[in-house]
Amino acid sequence: MARRLKLGMVGGGQGAFIGAVHRMAARLDDCFELVAGALSSDPQRAQASAADVHLARSYTDWREMARAEGARDDGIDAVAIVTPNHLHAPVATAFLEAGIHVICDKPLAVSLAEGEALAQLARDQRRLFALTHTYSGYPMVRYARERVEAGDIGELRVVQVEYAQDWLALPLEQSGANKQAVWRTDPAQSGPAGCLGDIGTHAYHLAGFITGTLPVALSADVHTFVPGRRLDDHVQAMLRYANGARGMLMASQVAGGAENALRLRVYGTKGGIAFDQEEPNVLWFTPLGGAAQRLTRGRVNSAVAAHATRVPAGHPEGYPEAFAQLYKDAALQIEALDAGRPVPPESRLLTTVDDGVAGLRFIEAMLASSAAGGQWRDI
Amino acid sequence: MARRLKLGMVGGGQGAFIGAVHRMAARLDDCFELVAGALSSDPQRAQASAADVHLARSYTDWREMARAEGARDDGIDAVAIVTPNHLHAPVATAFLEAGIHVICDKPLAVSLAEGEALAQLARDQRRLFALTHTYSGYPMVRYARERVEAGDIGELRVVQVEYAQDWLALPLEQSGANKQAVWRTDPAQSGPAGCLGDIGTHAYHLAGFITGTLPVALSADVHTFVPGRRLDDHVQAMLRYANGARGMLMASQVAGGAENALRLRVYGTKGGIAFDQEEPNVLWFTPLGGAAQRLTRGRVNSAVAAHATRVPAGHPEGYPEAFAQLYKDAALQIEALDAGRPVPPESRLLTTVDDGVAGLRFIEAMLASSAAGGQWRDI
Amino acid sequence: MARRLKLGMVGGGQGAFIGAVHRMAARLDDCFELVAGALSSDPQRAQASAADVHLARSYTDWREMARAEGARDDGIDAVAIVTPNHLHAPVATAFLEAGIHVICDKPLAVSLAEGEALAQLARDQRRLFALTHTYSGYPMVRYARERVEAGDIGELRVVQVEYAQDWLALPLEQSGANKQAVWRTDPAQSGPAGCLGDIGTHAYHLAGFITGTLPVALSADVHTFVPGRRLDDHVQAMLRYANGARGMLMASQVAGGAENALRLRVYGTKGGIAFDQEEPNVLWFTPLGGAAQRLTRGRVNSAVAAHATRVPAGHPEGYPEAFAQLYKDAALQIEALDAGRPVPPESRLLTTVDDGVAGLRFIEAMLASSAAGGQWRDI
Amino acid sequence: MARRLKLGMVGGGQGAFIGAVHRMAARLDDCFELVAGALSSDPQRAQASAADVHLARSYTDWREMARAEGARDDGIDAVAIVTPNHLHAPVATAFLEAGIHVICDKPLAVSLAEGEALAQLARDQRRLFALTHTYSGYPMVRYARERVEAGDIGELRVVQVEYAQDWLALPLEQSGANKQAVWRTDPAQSGPAGCLGDIGTHAYHLAGFITGTLPVALSADVHTFVPGRRLDDHVQAMLRYANGARGMLMASQVAGGAENALRLRVYGTKGGIAFDQEEPNVLWFTPLGGAAQRLTRGRVNSAVAAHATRVPAGHPEGYPEAFAQLYKDAALQIEALDAGRPVPPESRLLTTVDDGVAGLRFIEAMLASSAAGGQWRDI
Repeated sequence: MARRLKLGMVGGGQGAFIGAVHRMAARLDDCFELVAGALSSDPQRAQASAADVHLARSYTDWREMARAEGARDDGIDAVAIVTPNHLHAPVATAFLEAGIHVICDKPLAVSLAEGEALAQLARDQRRLFALTHTYSGYPMVRYARERVEAGDIGELRVVQVEYAQDWLALPLEQSGANKQAVWRTDPAQSGPAGCLGDIGTHAYHLAGFITGTLPVALSADVHTFVPGRRLDDHVQAMLRYANGARGMLMASQVAGGAENALRLRVYGTKGGIAFDQEEPNVLWFTPLGGAAQRLTRGRVNSAVAAHATRVPAGHPEGYPEAFAQLYKDAALQIEALDAGRPVPPESRLLTTVDDGVAGLRFIEAMLASSAAGGQWRDI
Repeated sequence: MARRLKLGMVGGGQGAFIGAVHRMAARLDDCFELVAGALSSDPQRAQASAADVHLARSYTDWREMARAEGARDDGIDAVAIVTPNHLHAPVATAFLEAGIHVICDKPLAVSLAEGEALAQLARDQRRLFALTHTYSGYPMVRYARERVEAGDIGELRVVQVEYAQDWLALPLEQSGANKQAVWRTDPAQSGPAGCLGDIGTHAYHLAGFITGTLPVALSADVHTFVPGRRLDDHVQAMLRYANGARGMLMASQVAGGAENALRLRVYGTKGGIAFDQEEPNVLWFTPLGGAAQRLTRGRVNSAVAAHATRVPAGHPEGYPEAFAQLYKDAALQIEALDAGRPVPPESRLLTTVDDGVAGLRFIEAMLASSAAGGQWRDI
Repeated sequence: MARRLKLGMVGGGQGAFIGAVHRMAARLDDCFELVAGALSSDPQRAQASAADVHLARSYTDWREMARAEGARDDGIDAVAIVTPNHLHAPVATAFLEAGIHVICDKPLAVSLAEGEALAQLARDQRRLFALTHTYSGYPMVRYARERVEAGDIGELRVVQVEYAQDWLALPLEQSGANKQAVWRTDPAQSGPAGCLGDIGTHAYHLAGFITGTLPVALSADVHTFVPGRRLDDHVQAMLRYANGARGMLMASQVAGGAENALRLRVYGTKGGIAFDQEEPNVLWFTPLGGAAQRLTRGRVNSAVAAHATRVPAGHPEGYPEAFAQLYKDAALQIEALDAGRPVPPESRLLTTVDDGVAGLRFIEAMLASSAAGGQWRDI
Repeated sequence: MARRLKLGMVGGGQGAFIGAVHRMAARLDDCFELVAGALSSDPQRAQASAADVHLARSYTDWREMARAEGARDDGIDAVAIVTPNHLHAPVATAFLEAGIHVICDKPLAVSLAEGEALAQLARDQRRLFALTHTYSGYPMVRYARERVEAGDIGELRVVQVEYAQDWLALPLEQSGANKQAVWRTDPAQSGPAGCLGDIGTHAYHLAGFITGTLPVALSADVHTFVPGRRLDDHVQAMLRYANGARGMLMASQVAGGAENALRLRVYGTKGGIAFDQEEPNVLWFTPLGGAAQRLTRGRVNSAVAAHATRVPAGHPEGYPEAFAQLYKDAALQIEALDAGRPVPPESRLLTTVDDGVAGLRFIEAMLASSAAGGQWRDI
């Protein structure tokens, strides 16, 4: 890396969760330096939060920040957007229009139309728009994609993906104490999808990322278990792929006993693979009729995995490193874009605004199918 | 056990698979002695097979066997039916009518009507009709049921059950060499359901056995992957329960890399459980928000598990023992029925003709829903 | 199998543990029929026990039984000896002298001299002497041996073997209620070694069986943790092999939390293997620098494994099947011996009196080294 | 954190391994900013390396660096020493004498005498001396220590610890291409212990850290497998504790198939625990006679674990985070020391120069015992 890029942040003040993770991720590989932020719309909280993280420039209004940073010679290269969902699009729009690259949490937006407009704007402005589907930063996820692409499981037959948590098994949002629970179950901040948008899109993205293909139709059942909850907390769907492959997807935030169980199995004509986010240094590959191989991060002979790895075999990496990988790839692309060079090939697995649009398409198809009694819907 | 019961067998000649397993299971706990059989309709093969297994009386016609054994003073107490599916009902009918108890492989029959008639006949004749849903013989499956029944996972919310194999990933039936593959993919012998009847019913039964409840509706996608195959080889479905619980079921015989992966997870308001048939001495229980407990056969303090166990903690039992458990429970019930005593409570988990009827109901709903484009169907 | 062999049993009356396992094992593959026994030296208990297991002929004195059975035309072919250790040698001697084959629990005897005399007698009488080192009956243990023998791990470098239990963590023998605990901690019945003889010999045997080689020297620490216990309950040792390989062995019956954790890892110049008795359908093989392979019973292409297997891939077998395998191999050898034919090659992995002698040699070296402050001792 | 501390580094130039890990660890929690370094004694390499990592001040001589930084008003607060072992003591001495806090890789020094002198100097100078026994930074390792300390496993009985790798299974040092292999097998740079010092000390430290106690005597076998290698590559030992507890320790760099398999099991009178470095988010706890509990980082209710954790339950942390934890604790202590405040209690688990001295004591006892044919030696 020739130099550290300058990063700004919108959202992520005291009490937030994902903002701190973004900051750690941005720092880990020494590609970014956080210099500016509108961490909170509350002036006092903004200032206190800024001091905590040693910000050079603190704003209370993100519109002003976009304007000011876009105008400075030493303004930020990129902004990390870590607000609740409903602000993703307006904030991103402001920064893109100011000529600033965007790294945005998922889901991309609260409607497909909004997302598509963002995608168009990013293209028009020729700015990077990275979407942090963190799990695609794991070396073994990228390696899985490489193996599938190389034909090692043969033709795709079956996709089984699920993402189970239990942190919303009780009506946690009702006391108001858990800020995460409050906004994630509030349609005004989260958009029309609850669990579906929060983690269903991760499951959907992971399956598409590894198989290299998206389903063409789905039949869904979107459900709310906890009485009084205003958004879904459990979704399930059957999937169909263009080549006839079948799939199932489940995402739940009320699955008593589950921590963060994002798991994928894919079966093809020649073999199958399995990945469990809670054990991310491992990928299972089983050839048809053969023995399961426990492939580990440091021992697979793969440039793709090596690019996404920091420490030797047997020294586990985790979620912060997967997140950092997205920032590292973003830095590589920003440098190339700013220099008018082609994007380096090793950074190409970075998830983009188009992944975000696909996620919104998925959300809309899920909601529509479920509303129509599970009718199969094209995605 | 006061005495060894006398067992007959229909089917299970040389080259068959499940017949040998039944014989081992019948023998293991010393409750039965195999004395008679119509192991094959081919006279030479019947005779050779009978010699292999030291049969006292060998028949080539099961109708004659039913008649003869029913008439002998020292005739068999029970018959094990291990033929292809289409013969289950006619053979069972003949033996029930001869007053002989029946232990029958699953699925019960090739249509719901046929199954219901059998159930009625068994009731009328006051004979035992055990259906060998083997996996319900595992101590940890029975223990799981006990824990759910005791309320340890709270109210049921989510059922995820699947049964994946890969042995039919290729068109194995086409060469004719693999007898199992031939009849299991032949509608004339298997009935209208392939993978669905063969292993889908196991998955369905296991979920119902452990949760103590059956879904009230399903939306299905019944599919055939292998070109030229005459029955389904992959099925998936979404489930709904009376209390609002949701579920998913998948059964596949073309899942490249899978051996015999029958797996169940159940999530409730207070916690979750998980069982994997390939590691049957273990049951996972995780309380809501707590640590997963790896419960093992020998260490759970449970009369139900103890009744289904033979060797001490840490000495694994397997599939033959689970199968033997059904025979042991059958022997206990036969002794009681013959003596006019009530069935011993510890034997009550034995799967019955009614489980078979429920399985046929499931098959018919799956086929109907899938034929109607996945429409939700009552079961 | 042309015919069922006739089996007798000494020991194994009501309340015993291993006798019932032997009976199940003898029955499982239909090679033996239990017809006679001296199940207890107490006449009433002998009679009640005999009735329980449908014995044709019940004795109260094993000397008389040896004499009588040896003299009958239809006398037993083989005797299973399941008494406490101190009786193994006298009982085996009596039956060998009566021309009857012997299947004996381990350890072989209570001293090396006694064991060597037995081995000589078995050779002189040309009778089978099988020693039930059960764990060598597991298909994946036999397969492991085959892989090592084929050179797949290269030259042997490191052996790590351990057998941990916790059932004697408390002074269980002191109340007298647990018969197993009483005799196993009593030098008069167990011989000079407690945990060392009971499970240390299993660990030692397993390592030797799989690697195909025994250490030439050891340095031991034999210890008793529980106050008042009269025999060791925890042993540890370092091992050296002729080729310079190193090893460690631990056996404990006071390891709080352990069930029956017999585990072996072997590392060589080309790779390593790992086996865990509590998951016996699996063997791990890892080539040097490569990915671990989870080899399963039904999927390894091996005649050796196939000979020791009963049900298809993914249908777990367990400890009863491993035990049965010894009986099956014993039956094959007895038939051959009685017919004057060479022993069938597939039965050759059956553990013998010589394995028992090696185990006694190990016990004596362990005790001697530990008594000498851990001095290295030749074995 | 009130401010970022200023960090210097000695060693860790291009091609080194652990230097980059230290930098990442120092950065992760935003407690340190790397500003100065003597990354290489080769001037060109030093300069190139310094540019890579955006160093403000680059030196080629660490003596000069210590002097210069000690004299500057804005000099470094602490130095990270990541050289080969033989330089640890001289470099640390120079910086301590310049009043600069030290964070040093392990082993502490190449002799016990050298180590003890360092410890004395650190005390005299009242400077922090942190030793990076990384594995003690894992939340579940610290949590394990807490549970043991709370008495949850009862009195200590058995310690089984091992650290197996295979990266030196072949004579990798002979080509000279692998710089790590060259210096780690060179007595002039590594000191008298090879594998023993490199990873044996980690295993020893981990066992002591978790159990809160060190063995009082050992009997060792220090061995070299690879022909021509100048230092040991495999060591094994038996351990004895003051209370009578027993233990075994193995460390190997030639264990074909092993990645970085640092594993510990501890058994006590009330239960046992198990930790595997390759799955660091998990700790197993099994009460005597009970079910194993799979405790996870995010779900144990422990301030000690929480202090060492960054992301929520189910989002894995890894080796970089464990390393960062040591830097975070070091920062907390440096701030307190510099302010004349007592060290914050939550930072107290940071490993120190005294842990380093204990490690050197262990090395010397191992070498002496092995040289004396495995004689038991006091540690």
